[in-house]
Amino acid sequence: MTNYFRSNVNAMASYVPGEQPPRGTPIIKLNSNENPYPPSPAALEVLRNIDGEWLRRYPEPFGGEFRQAASKVLGIPSDWIIVGNGSDEVLSIVIRACTEQGRKVVYPMPTYVLYRTLTEMQAADVLEIPYQENYSLPIEEIIAADGAVTFIASPNSPSGHVVPGEDLRKLASTLSGVLVIDEAYVDFATENALDLVREYENVILIRTLSKGYSLAGLRLGFGIANPQLLSGLFKVKDSYNIDAIACAVATAAITDQEYKNACVAKIKASKNQLATDLKQLGFIVWDSQANFLLVQPPQGNAEYLYQKLKEQQILIRYFKQPGLEDKLRISIGTDEQNQTLVQALTSLLKTGE
Amino acid sequence: MTNYFRSNVNAMASYVPGEQPPRGTPIIKLNSNENPYPPSPAALEVLRNIDGEWLRRYPEPFGGEFRQAASKVLGIPSDWIIVGNGSDEVLSIVIRACTEQGRKVVYPMPTYVLYRTLTEMQAADVLEIPYQENYSLPIEEIIAADGAVTFIASPNSPSGHVVPGEDLRKLASTLSGVLVIDEAYVDFATENALDLVREYENVILIRTLSKGYSLAGLRLGFGIANPQLLSGLFKVKDSYNIDAIACAVATAAITDQEYKNACVAKIKASKNQLATDLKQLGFIVWDSQANFLLVQPPQGNAEYLYQKLKEQQILIRYFKQPGLEDKLRISIGTDEQNQTLVQALTSLLKTGE
Repeated sequence: MTNYFRSNVNAMASYVPGEQPPRGTPIIKLNSNENPYPPSPAALEVLRNIDGEWLRRYPEPFGGEFRQAASKVLGIPSDWIIVGNGSDEVLSIVIRACTEQGRKVVYPMPTYVLYRTLTEMQAADVLEIPYQENYSLPIEEIIAADGAVTFIASPNSPSGHVVPGEDLRKLASTLSGVLVIDEAYVDFATENALDLVREYENVILIRTLSKGYSLAGLRLGFGIANPQLLSGLFKVKDSYNIDAIACAVATAAITDQEYKNACVAKIKASKNQLATDLKQLGFIVWDSQANFLLVQPPQGNAEYLYQKLKEQQILIRYFKQPGLEDKLRISIGTDEQNQTLVQALTSLLKTGE
Repeated sequence: MTNYFRSNVNAMASYVPGEQPPRGTPIIKLNSNENPYPPSPAALEVLRNIDGEWLRRYPEPFGGEFRQAASKVLGIPSDWIIVGNGSDEVLSIVIRACTEQGRKVVYPMPTYVLYRTLTEMQAADVLEIPYQENYSLPIEEIIAADGAVTFIASPNSPSGHVVPGEDLRKLASTLSGVLVIDEAYVDFATENALDLVREYENVILIRTLSKGYSLAGLRLGFGIANPQLLSGLFKVKDSYNIDAIACAVATAAITDQEYKNACVAKIKASKNQLATDLKQLGFIVWDSQANFLLVQPPQGNAEYLYQKLKEQQILIRYFKQPGLEDKLRISIGTDEQNQTLVQALTSLLKTGE
């Protein structure tokens, strides 16, 4: 076939979708950091009451109803919020608005793999700086690189650690470009960077309803930044990027903080139990402020364990990446699911490789 | 504020959203080419049965369920279909995959204004070629321009005309770049370009469920092209761009062809009646194979009529663009809505400017 694509698109690897088995498959799915509990009953109730008129007409272009609700919950004016078709779309919007060939995108590794994909799409330069021992931030190298966009995921995946507030503040005050603090997992953490958005014009926080609010299937995320920064981002977003149903359901979900907080509390307790159990089996377990654990098996056979668990219908995540080949990322399931996993691992470690 | 954006983003005008009054506003809305009838009852029934498990988990990355259903209806293999968050996203994906600074995007004018916006975002060059008298295609100029991407909307908006099949075939066989045939309004037309997709590797058709299927609020569109062309487009789409609800509802809607065809038949009959009524009032009315009419008022006072109708809670579309200043675009409503419009216009024409 004739080649119709830009050279950087040709050079990109084809996207390999994650393992998302069809609904109804009898599987314990601990590979995508989904919430094991259903979304708020209030959100499902909204879904029941949607009628044809909501679907027949174009939605409100900026997700106004959701922005109002998020504004109340977060104590941030609604015009400081941009809503996206999942937080992935908000990340894509930032990249498209602020980077191009010859501009640099900087982030510490390992982290969310999408940052590289989005940067390559835009033909901008990628600079990946390895995390130091025990995931302390290579802050001087990041400052020296001074990207047009710098991504910091906090809590980070797959490590689960939170980047200290003073590090983020130093980046915000020093970098000449945009600092994206990706708080996809913030609902499980003890701190957030909302103060920095108020103080620094170059900071945008990224949030999602996929994790704490159990709405990964709905595709709704948002960014928080000052209206001037958002004005440039609004220019590159699709006109009607938020569908009417997602907006209404997400509005109900974010309003129901009590339900979300109860789910988060259960997941944190389960995480502590799972960490204890895995340590007893000899795993190294990193401290995590997210809804997953990064762990290192005692016999260094991470890929083997991943494959064997998959054969037993238990999906966890293995990354074939420098620094991660001997580790596994496990999303926190229900206590029952986690126990099944621990039992399976116990047997596998006994039989060895 | 420091300028964080690419120069072409700075140069772009801020997006001005269309007039989308809140639900419940007592208004006759004939400005966005929405379908006046609700979506298929089968689609609404699917909505009632969605449970928390659909929302908790990530959706299937390629909208597989919808692709299967569309495949059956269209007689095209499912791997010839790419699903987007509205057809706008599919248009954006084509532009991002195939164009960049120094590449040209070509289309006849007037047409869908988004083509310019998307091209400017990508910093590619825009070449707009005026339609000839009575909307005949400036085919030699389009061929001579030989864009990396050429857009032809057929039926076109705001004119409502269908570009003849032989013209599209000539473009497909001659152009060295991608030919995008935007068939957003095809459900109201007597012909389509599906054959060309099968024959020419550089052709992609764009379809939507926003018009014929009454699902503008759902945001679901799709492209039809050979799998090799789609492979490049899949690389630049967001990983999970289709939410689980939209996929399920759209699957039911496209499967219910009988309901869609019945709505389309009603709209066509109403369109003929409205055209007759407006001609009797002295309007010039262009033939339309879409769910709207382009009309020219007898007294040349298009903008005045648009404003006066708006004061009476009737929204139609006025484009302040070369060749359109003396014209109006009217979406086809129910017979009752159309009659209210005709009565309002009758009074306004009597009182004059």
